[in-house]
Amino acid sequence: MKAIDLTEKRIIEIVSRSFGKGESVLIGAGEDDCAVMDIGGGSLVLTTDMLHKKTDFPDMMTAAQIGWMSVAVNLSDIASMGARPIALLFSIGLPGCTEQEFIKELGEGMNRCASKYNVSIVGGDIDSHDELTICGSAIGTASKDGIVRRAGAVESEILCVTGSLGGAAAGLRIALGEASVPDSIEASLLKSLFEPEPKINEGLVLSEFATSMTDISDSLAISLYELSDASGVGFLIDEEKIPIAEGVKDTFEDPLDVSIYGGGDFELLFTIKRKDVASVLKKVPCNVIGEVTSGGIALKESGEEVGFRGYSHFK
Amino acid sequence: MKAIDLTEKRIIEIVSRSFGKGESVLIGAGEDDCAVMDIGGGSLVLTTDMLHKKTDFPDMMTAAQIGWMSVAVNLSDIASMGARPIALLFSIGLPGCTEQEFIKELGEGMNRCASKYNVSIVGGDIDSHDELTICGSAIGTASKDGIVRRAGAVESEILCVTGSLGGAAAGLRIALGEASVPDSIEASLLKSLFEPEPKINEGLVLSEFATSMTDISDSLAISLYELSDASGVGFLIDEEKIPIAEGVKDTFEDPLDVSIYGGGDFELLFTIKRKDVASVLKKVPCNVIGEVTSGGIALKESGEEVGFRGYSHFK
Repeated sequence: MKAIDLTEKRIIEIVSRSFGKGESVLIGAGEDDCAVMDIGGGSLVLTTDMLHKKTDFPDMMTAAQIGWMSVAVNLSDIASMGARPIALLFSIGLPGCTEQEFIKELGEGMNRCASKYNVSIVGGDIDSHDELTICGSAIGTASKDGIVRRAGAVESEILCVTGSLGGAAAGLRIALGEASVPDSIEASLLKSLFEPEPKINEGLVLSEFATSMTDISDSLAISLYELSDASGVGFLIDEEKIPIAEGVKDTFEDPLDVSIYGGGDFELLFTIKRKDVASVLKKVPCNVIGEVTSGGIALKESGEEVGFRGYSHFK
Repeated sequence: MKAIDLTEKRIIEIVSRSFGKGESVLIGAGEDDCAVMDIGGGSLVLTTDMLHKKTDFPDMMTAAQIGWMSVAVNLSDIASMGARPIALLFSIGLPGCTEQEFIKELGEGMNRCASKYNVSIVGGDIDSHDELTICGSAIGTASKDGIVRRAGAVESEILCVTGSLGGAAAGLRIALGEASVPDSIEASLLKSLFEPEPKINEGLVLSEFATSMTDISDSLAISLYELSDASGVGFLIDEEKIPIAEGVKDTFEDPLDVSIYGGGDFELLFTIKRKDVASVLKKVPCNVIGEVTSGGIALKESGEEVGFRGYSHFK
C-alpha cells in the first residue's frame, strides 16, 4: 500500500529510534495499537491516525460519515488496549473549495461518534490543504493492570472475536454497485462500512479477562498475524465458528473468505483463559473462533494455512 | 490565510460545539493554546498542529529542520501553558517519491528536538500522501494551579517577553536572498527561522509567576491581541524596550516594525505582578516591554495603536 519502499513499522522505527524510550514510556511507537505511558497511579494510552480523501474517503461517503469514521478509527485503537478514551484532538486540512455545510456535517458526524462513547473533542488545528486530510489523536486512561497488549496469549488459551465479520466488505461491494441485497440488510451493511462502531465498552469489560487483544483493522487474518507475532504463538481457527455478518452470504460467493480476509470491521480479536469463557460470553457479544497453539495460523476443517492478506476500506 | 470563508476559530467551534465540554475538560477546543483536562490530582495539557509542504516547509529547509520544526511548534504550545511535555505523537503523510535518506534525516531532526526537551515520541501513523504532511500532537502535564492561561492579566501588571524578536523574519529575508549579514549572524538568524527553540524551561519557571501567557506564533502584535481578548485588558508597550534580535537592524530598515509584526519567533509573551518583576528577571531570560492597561494596545513613545497583523513563516 505504500509507494515508498519502507513499511510503516520501519519508518516509525527510523523516526523514533534515535531517542529511545523514556522511563515512563511503557509501550513505545509501533509496538502495539497504542503507546502507553506511566503517569503514576495509572496509564495514559495514546494513538494517532491520519486519514485523507484519496485513500479513505470515497465520493460515496457523506461528510457526516467522514467525521464519524475519523473519530471511530482512533477510538478503536483505544478500545483494543482495554482503555477508556477521555479526549480527542483533530487537525483538519480543508481544500479551499470546501462548503460551510460540509464542515458543519463533518463536525456533526465527529461529535455524534465522540458523544456516543462519551469522549470530548478538546482541541484542533485547521489548515488549508489541497486534499481533505483529517488527523486525529485519541487519549485514553487505564489502570496499570488494565492494559491489554498484543503480546500475552499463551498456548491452549481460547481465541474470540466480538460481533460479526465481513459486513464492511459486503457494504463496499454494495456501495460499488457490484451486488444487491434487500433494503433492510443494505442499510446495515453500508453502516458497517461507513459508520463502524469502535468496541469501547467491550474493550473495557475485556480488560479484566483478555490475555492479548487487537482491533481488526485490515482483516481478521492480519490481526491474527499481529497477535501471533507479538505473543509468539499460533492459532487454530474453527472456520465454522467464524461469525459471518448478515448479508455477506447474499453478497459474496465465498463469505468465509471475505470474513477472514475482508477489511473494515471494527471488531476486537482477543484471547482468554479457558476458565473465563463462560463469563466472557455472558458479558460481551462475542464468539469463540479457535484456540491458541504453539505456532502457525491454520483453519481446523480445511487444514489450510491462513494467508497474510487483507485490505483497508478503499486503499 | 484560509481560502475558505471561515476563520480557524469558527471552524473549531463548529466541529466541537455539538458535543459540549465534558466535566473533566477545563479548557476546551479553541479556547487557549492548548486544551486542558482534569485527570484527578493534576492536569493533562493537549495540543495538535498540522504542517505541510506548501505552507510550512519551503525548499530551503532541510529534512532535519522540517523534523525539528514539527516537534518545536507543538512543544511551544505546551510551553505557553506553563506545562511539562511528556509525549509526542506524529502522523506523517509521505509522497511516494520520498527518499529513505530524507526520512532518516526527518526522524533525526524530530528526535533531536524532542530529546533536547526530554520528551518521547511515543506513537505514529505513516501514510502515503501527495503532499508532505506532518501532524503532531503533544501531551503535557501540570499541577492544577500550574496552568497559565491567556486569560488572567489584570490592569497595572507588567508585560514581558522572553528572548528577542525579529530574528526569524530576518532569517527569512536572508534565506530568500533579499539581505545579507556577516556569516556569524547569518547562521544564528537562519537557526531562529528554521530551528526555533520552544521555551519549555522558561514556561515551567513562569508557571509560578505569570498571570497570563501565550507563545508568539504569528507576531508579537497578534499575541498581544490574544492576551487582550482573553483577559479583557489593554497594553501600553514601551517600544524602546522591545528586545530586537541581533542582525535585524542589519537586515531591515525598520527593525522595530519587524519585531512587532514579524512572525516565527518562538518566544513567550506574559504578564506578571509588579512585585514579581525582580524575581522573574533573575530566573528567566526576558525583558519588561510594557504594562497592562484597561483597554487598547498602543505604543508609548509614538502613541500609535498596534495593528492586528503578522505572518507565519511562509504562509
